[in-house]
Amino acid sequence: MRINDLDTPVVVVDVDVMERNLRRAADYTRRHGLALRPHTKTHKTPEIARRQVELGAPGIAVAKVGEAEVMADAGLDDILIAYPQVGAQKMHRLMALCERARVRVALDSEESATQIARAAAAAGHTIGILVEVDTGMRRCGLPIGPELVALCRKVRDLPGLEFLGVQVYQGHVRGALAEREKHLVEENARLRRLYDTLSSASLSCAVISGGSTPNLAQSHLLDGLTEVRPGTYVFNDRNTIETGACAMEDVALHVIATVVSTAVSGQAIIDGGSKTFSSDLVHGSAERGHGIAVEDPGVFITRMNEEHGVLDLGAATREYRVGDRVTIVPNHVCTVVNLHDQLALHRAGEVVGAYRVAGRGKLR
Amino acid sequence: MRINDLDTPVVVVDVDVMERNLRRAADYTRRHGLALRPHTKTHKTPEIARRQVELGAPGIAVAKVGEAEVMADAGLDDILIAYPQVGAQKMHRLMALCERARVRVALDSEESATQIARAAAAAGHTIGILVEVDTGMRRCGLPIGPELVALCRKVRDLPGLEFLGVQVYQGHVRGALAEREKHLVEENARLRRLYDTLSSASLSCAVISGGSTPNLAQSHLLDGLTEVRPGTYVFNDRNTIETGACAMEDVALHVIATVVSTAVSGQAIIDGGSKTFSSDLVHGSAERGHGIAVEDPGVFITRMNEEHGVLDLGAATREYRVGDRVTIVPNHVCTVVNLHDQLALHRAGEVVGAYRVAGRGKLR
Repeated sequence: MRINDLDTPVVVVDVDVMERNLRRAADYTRRHGLALRPHTKTHKTPEIARRQVELGAPGIAVAKVGEAEVMADAGLDDILIAYPQVGAQKMHRLMALCERARVRVALDSEESATQIARAAAAAGHTIGILVEVDTGMRRCGLPIGPELVALCRKVRDLPGLEFLGVQVYQGHVRGALAEREKHLVEENARLRRLYDTLSSASLSCAVISGGSTPNLAQSHLLDGLTEVRPGTYVFNDRNTIETGACAMEDVALHVIATVVSTAVSGQAIIDGGSKTFSSDLVHGSAERGHGIAVEDPGVFITRMNEEHGVLDLGAATREYRVGDRVTIVPNHVCTVVNLHDQLALHRAGEVVGAYRVAGRGKLR
Repeated sequence: MRINDLDTPVVVVDVDVMERNLRRAADYTRRHGLALRPHTKTHKTPEIARRQVELGAPGIAVAKVGEAEVMADAGLDDILIAYPQVGAQKMHRLMALCERARVRVALDSEESATQIARAAAAAGHTIGILVEVDTGMRRCGLPIGPELVALCRKVRDLPGLEFLGVQVYQGHVRGALAEREKHLVEENARLRRLYDTLSSASLSCAVISGGSTPNLAQSHLLDGLTEVRPGTYVFNDRNTIETGACAMEDVALHVIATVVSTAVSGQAIIDGGSKTFSSDLVHGSAERGHGIAVEDPGVFITRMNEEHGVLDLGAATREYRVGDRVTIVPNHVCTVVNLHDQLALHRAGEVVGAYRVAGRGKLR
């Protein structure tokens, strides 16, 4: 069966491109002595996580305990939950997870550290902790300073916890080459300040975990990293292309949709909208729309509702008729995968299998 | 158990508010002699669809065959697929559906009409068709004019099809009272032009299906409608509040989240982002963010990533600590429900059950 025989909208993954993406990152990190701990948020698929480990990853990263459980069910046994954990239910599940996998957790508050320590000590576990530091994303992570030092010491001293090091997320180091190099220089200045602060406080870090897909190929230029946690590189997407981190031919995942209406002139409606693609924008720009047509790259989804994607045909080089199929590179592949229960696998358009997205919708 | 004992992020539905919303719409439409055919895209939940029918709805509307199948599985037997259908697989499933439910389909192209007619005639079914007309959404639907007349005639004449009438979607009739009244006047002018066009061509419509939640309470002022297809009114959301169509106390669905980080000053991070709330904006405005805090309405989610919701605490009237729970009114409830497998039901905060979102993720 060909992918063009599959009913739409459908997510298809080119296994050869995916394998090339996985190998390229594995080879690169091996060459530079970096541990590659892929964030599985992008694929949420145990089969792909296992392949990443086969290619050399010491373990994986996830955001939620529920994602960790899915991966542990599939035999993944070294899991970083790269997201702060709080609350009784989370502690309970975290301890159960420790029975069957080596679990590390990132956190940035005394509250989270104390809760995990109490649960771990009671259960007889020792959980490796990365303290999260904010170097520019302004999301999670303490600023470099006394509060960070105090939390690292707390983690080092609490029974049930093992202070492993720090976690940063460097999604802000991106952009075209000149811009990215400027960001790299700035980021390295912050990293050196971080290392100075930690070593002045006699805090020794076995792990400095950072990186992200937009700067994956520059990870060795980020001072002192021991580990990187890219996610998107497995599939890539329009965002990755636009950050300059990959080319169109490195995109492994596409959405095939069908034109269902051409009734309003100048546009074609495809049978997928935000329920298929998510509403994520390209770098926050509504003008850039929601995905580009592979066969006709001047054409993109200019607006959408849940089930309607509007292709503006102003720059079209072909005719669009009801029933025609369109192959779309989505803006943000992670949120696309989370909307689909299955990924169809193909090799040059021939369907060769399917993966169930077992980690989809694991919100907790 | 109280909803505040549930692990987060979690979607909770106040069954009393939901019931009041359902009854209000049922009473209103009955009073005005309008058929209420709720669009189930909002709840995707057979139990709620059945309640809508118990309260007087002659049937339901869905967008996809997969949603229709879920509803037919639950005994719903009068289903409008309010979305154009094309392609061999869709035809096959449509015919199977006709074996167990009365199915109507909306369409706006000869291609879709011909495909359905051929399949229906071969299977010995007659499918009721609504021809979709665009009165301002610029999405699906033919403009009022000769092409529309030609398609209606085609549908009337094709064996296997029954021309029932027309479908419009009037999501553009919204806004504050004065604005909405202006939109109503303009929409009625278009509707009269539509009816003149159809009657000049001797096309008689048993069904004029229209409406939407933002103008639900004005449906009787929209000339000539026989049926309305609102969806959101079952739960309401921030968008509905902002169109003036409901008040805060009419919101039946909330997302409860937990603060997981306060490390970056001036903000708190909650454990839900676009994977929990979707990225849908309020009327396209990025400045308005992604959802408001019920307990502290000056606080809203200013930006998000997949797992991070950033609450800007500039207008906060309380302290936010790691572990605190926050109740959020999401921007767009339909896309939220599609991200969750289950809705927890409560009455004044006491958990009274749960519904599985059986129609979630039915993309095809």
